[in-house]
Amino acid sequence: MLPTIAWQDSDIVMIDQRKLPAAEIYVTCRSVNDVAKAIKTMVIRGAPAIGVCAAMGLALGAERSKATGTKQFTTEFQRNSELLAATRPTAVNLFWAIERMKQSFASGALAGESVDQLKARLRAEADRIHDDDIASCRAIGAHGATVVPAEACILTHCNAGALATAGYGTALGVIRGAVAAGRKVRVLADETRPFLQGARLTAWELVKDGIDTTVITDNMAGAIMRAGDVDLVVVGADRIAANGDTANKIGTYTVAVLAKEHGIPFYVAAPWSTIDLATPDGDAIPIEERAAREVTHVGATQLAPDGAHVRNPSFDVTPHKYITAIITERGIFKAPFTDTLSQG
Amino acid sequence: MLPTIAWQDSDIVMIDQRKLPAAEIYVTCRSVNDVAKAIKTMVIRGAPAIGVCAAMGLALGAERSKATGTKQFTTEFQRNSELLAATRPTAVNLFWAIERMKQSFASGALAGESVDQLKARLRAEADRIHDDDIASCRAIGAHGATVVPAEACILTHCNAGALATAGYGTALGVIRGAVAAGRKVRVLADETRPFLQGARLTAWELVKDGIDTTVITDNMAGAIMRAGDVDLVVVGADRIAANGDTANKIGTYTVAVLAKEHGIPFYVAAPWSTIDLATPDGDAIPIEERAAREVTHVGATQLAPDGAHVRNPSFDVTPHKYITAIITERGIFKAPFTDTLSQG
Repeated sequence: MLPTIAWQDSDIVMIDQRKLPAAEIYVTCRSVNDVAKAIKTMVIRGAPAIGVCAAMGLALGAERSKATGTKQFTTEFQRNSELLAATRPTAVNLFWAIERMKQSFASGALAGESVDQLKARLRAEADRIHDDDIASCRAIGAHGATVVPAEACILTHCNAGALATAGYGTALGVIRGAVAAGRKVRVLADETRPFLQGARLTAWELVKDGIDTTVITDNMAGAIMRAGDVDLVVVGADRIAANGDTANKIGTYTVAVLAKEHGIPFYVAAPWSTIDLATPDGDAIPIEERAAREVTHVGATQLAPDGAHVRNPSFDVTPHKYITAIITERGIFKAPFTDTLSQG
Repeated sequence: MLPTIAWQDSDIVMIDQRKLPAAEIYVTCRSVNDVAKAIKTMVIRGAPAIGVCAAMGLALGAERSKATGTKQFTTEFQRNSELLAATRPTAVNLFWAIERMKQSFASGALAGESVDQLKARLRAEADRIHDDDIASCRAIGAHGATVVPAEACILTHCNAGALATAGYGTALGVIRGAVAAGRKVRVLADETRPFLQGARLTAWELVKDGIDTTVITDNMAGAIMRAGDVDLVVVGADRIAANGDTANKIGTYTVAVLAKEHGIPFYVAAPWSTIDLATPDGDAIPIEERAAREVTHVGATQLAPDGAHVRNPSFDVTPHKYITAIITERGIFKAPFTDTLSQG
């Protein structure tokens, strides 16, 4: 199992996903500020992973607190929650995890627990969120394996793998589940500009697992589909609206359009925590726009000239009509999503 | 006018397109081998430009010849032609230009011209090919301007600009023509992985011309089209088959599918020398596959891990059904292309 994020005594250690695959460097977070910075700067990324990370960050912040009374402790917890919620806007798992921690806190406070009891409760809740995430990924993998034919070339976009979760992965969970179920799988990994999570992270994970993986630039997907070399697409999600519209890494929508044009099934794999029934449709999902430098530079190499404008939306929305099914730990959901998801 | 390629006494000088936009470095070719290497390693690229370059290379090779009799001179010319024809397989302009030089040579030889006369003839023919290319681009620009609305956001892929031609450009010729005709134009430039001709070259050219240009990663095109921000697409071509199927830079097909999905006109702009009536359809166009390193590395930065496979087809084929019209110096051609192109 890949070490996406873990406790080391009362510190949080995570692999620096900006440095992979060239170097395996670990970052130690000793404060909530460290954790917020790690999420913001993408030391850790992936919707489920940043949810888990935020929960662990709140537990860490609680553990570090010097508050002697519950009033100050509560104020600090609130401030830490706000700090972590402000790191990134699109992935709903972040807010879901913070909300779950808040509810645990509220239950403890209501029961008159002491600061030390609240600290222990928050640590236990964060650990449950962490472990639940892995269990969800494995269930997604088991459900997802059923949609993969005996031999399949699976295209995926970005990294919805062990590195994007507490472990095992969502889209890559489906791939791992299919391999575990005896399917003969080849993977096409879109490199996924600008941050290159596909080339850097998905390929790194899958090669480590001995799964046959081919990296392509994002713009090759169409030609390879037209050649008949893709059997299905599976991607992760950052937020799934009540009607099934799905926000995911920029370029996902392009892949979905291509899949439709070629009659290729297009699956979204995500834990239930990614489904946001409070958001009616994709238009209501906030889309983060990140710094131009992610597009204009790779390492020290300048790609675009000074004077050119740059767009860098980190996510796009794939309307539900392009989605064959949504694979979750609760099973596989199909259209009409407004009905099926609300009953999930 | 940008200095894509020019004579400097009897040497050929070209801007090193691998180094842009970070540095403006010029490469001097003193032999046919130098010219062949420049094409192969993409010091110069772009279908019309490598055609012009090959013609100039043959003139340079002739000028350098120490042959005293036409027999040896002819043998050298043949060998030089073969060397240049073997540099890159997809762009038909390369073969077209070599063929035109061969025909000129044959006319001179038939007329009993001396070695010196043949040298002068080849130099003159190369200069005509160079100048004709610029004239064609300007005519493409004038015709193309008529399809551009008064205000337009135009998406283009790769670089079909001054740098891809002897000057002015084909797709960028349409943009320049539209600007010259008073249209208010904004340009979206796909960065065009792996070689990044869009970010590095198209943006560089257009910013120099003061045209409003925004660089996007290739995988953003879909989301931006869905947002309604693209009025038309114009791309260049490396080879257009008799039925209108068009080989162009990898990713062009994906853009064409997206344009169709969103009801956006998709134009191909190319000189007539790009149309290969001897190739019946796209399946018959050879597609170059280049080295994996273009995908796995940018500068010194390694993007994909060792152990992952890589695909790197340089071109794809857009079937004619996705093409609204083909803009050439002879006018604008529409479906059924088999009829219209054969009568062009």
